[in-house]
Amino acid sequence: MSEQPRSIHFSLPAWLDDYLGQPAPFATVEERMAFVIGAARRNVEKGTGGPFGAGVFEVESGRLMALGVNLVTSVGLSMLHAEMVAISLAQRRLGVYDLGAPGLPALELVSSAEPCAMCCGAIPWSGVGRLVYAAREADVRGIGFDEGDKAPDWRQSLGRRGIEVIPEVMRTEATDVLAAYAAVGGGIYNASPAPR
Amino acid sequence: MSEQPRSIHFSLPAWLDDYLGQPAPFATVEERMAFVIGAARRNVEKGTGGPFGAGVFEVESGRLMALGVNLVTSVGLSMLHAEMVAISLAQRRLGVYDLGAPGLPALELVSSAEPCAMCCGAIPWSGVGRLVYAAREADVRGIGFDEGDKAPDWRQSLGRRGIEVIPEVMRTEATDVLAAYAAVGGGIYNASPAPR
Repeated sequence: MSEQPRSIHFSLPAWLDDYLGQPAPFATVEERMAFVIGAARRNVEKGTGGPFGAGVFEVESGRLMALGVNLVTSVGLSMLHAEMVAISLAQRRLGVYDLGAPGLPALELVSSAEPCAMCCGAIPWSGVGRLVYAAREADVRGIGFDEGDKAPDWRQSLGRRGIEVIPEVMRTEATDVLAAYAAVGGGIYNASPAPR
Repeated sequence: MSEQPRSIHFSLPAWLDDYLGQPAPFATVEERMAFVIGAARRNVEKGTGGPFGAGVFEVESGRLMALGVNLVTSVGLSMLHAEMVAISLAQRRLGVYDLGAPGLPALELVSSAEPCAMCCGAIPWSGVGRLVYAAREADVRGIGFDEGDKAPDWRQSLGRRGIEVIPEVMRTEATDVLAAYAAVGGGIYNASPAPR
């Protein structure tokens, strides 16, 4: 067994470079979501992770700060959900651990699916001021993922922290990607046995 | 503004190399917790992050798989709580995204504090079979951190997934480290405004 590693490194898949060359900014939340869902779909097609994409955008201008896709299986780290990747890349780009820091424009997290318990818990720490999502948790559970248990009033919980939630933007398009992943037998990377 | 970065890299602080040279294995949960709390204390003294440490250990042998400390402020990524760092380093060491994968010994997460909503949500994805923690959430909130809202029955939620929880091992020693952090004016890195 090797010694404990002292560092972690992970990268976006190479195909994402081309995808990031698309026109920008994205004026509407639907345009932003379509871009994020397109990344999720390519992630499935390229076999580089789960059927999820997320981006951090400037709320007003629609400028993309960072794009993430799920990298759990390709990088081998369970925390690398699309939301965590996008948030971390945006924080790296801006040089802050708080995306709500003074002087920054309002930023939002646009995710192709309702965040799991981990990602929902990550949102207040991240500093984003808004969450926009597409597929429902039930849609994600429907293909076999155990999303964990959030607070029952999680939307209000974010709201109390000044974070707006816009649910189910382009849900159908996002669930199509979930279905495509299930159809190709994409890995369901639950670790613990899901409760019965 | 720079282009979106394509990768993330982070490392444990250099002082941790010496600390990792301590005798091992750790026979009891108390020895494991003392080691983890010692790392949290040094993290405060060295100014490399919040007052939190966590380790992944083999449950039976007490062998350390990975040690993490909170790196939010020093690395500049909000997701780098001690638990996330320890889990990721253990996954990297073992080459798996699931620490409960067949063929691995049972592994546990030992944390100097009750996990926040993010880290609690990360635990089922990680594959650890047991959580041991020291300080209560109320202790952490007491020095100003907004831990987010977990499911009210979060311990049962982990239990339903086959994850045992052993609470409040060496709580006093862990809260001493929280107090030391508060006393030196350590940064409270909440992003969103905490609810009133």
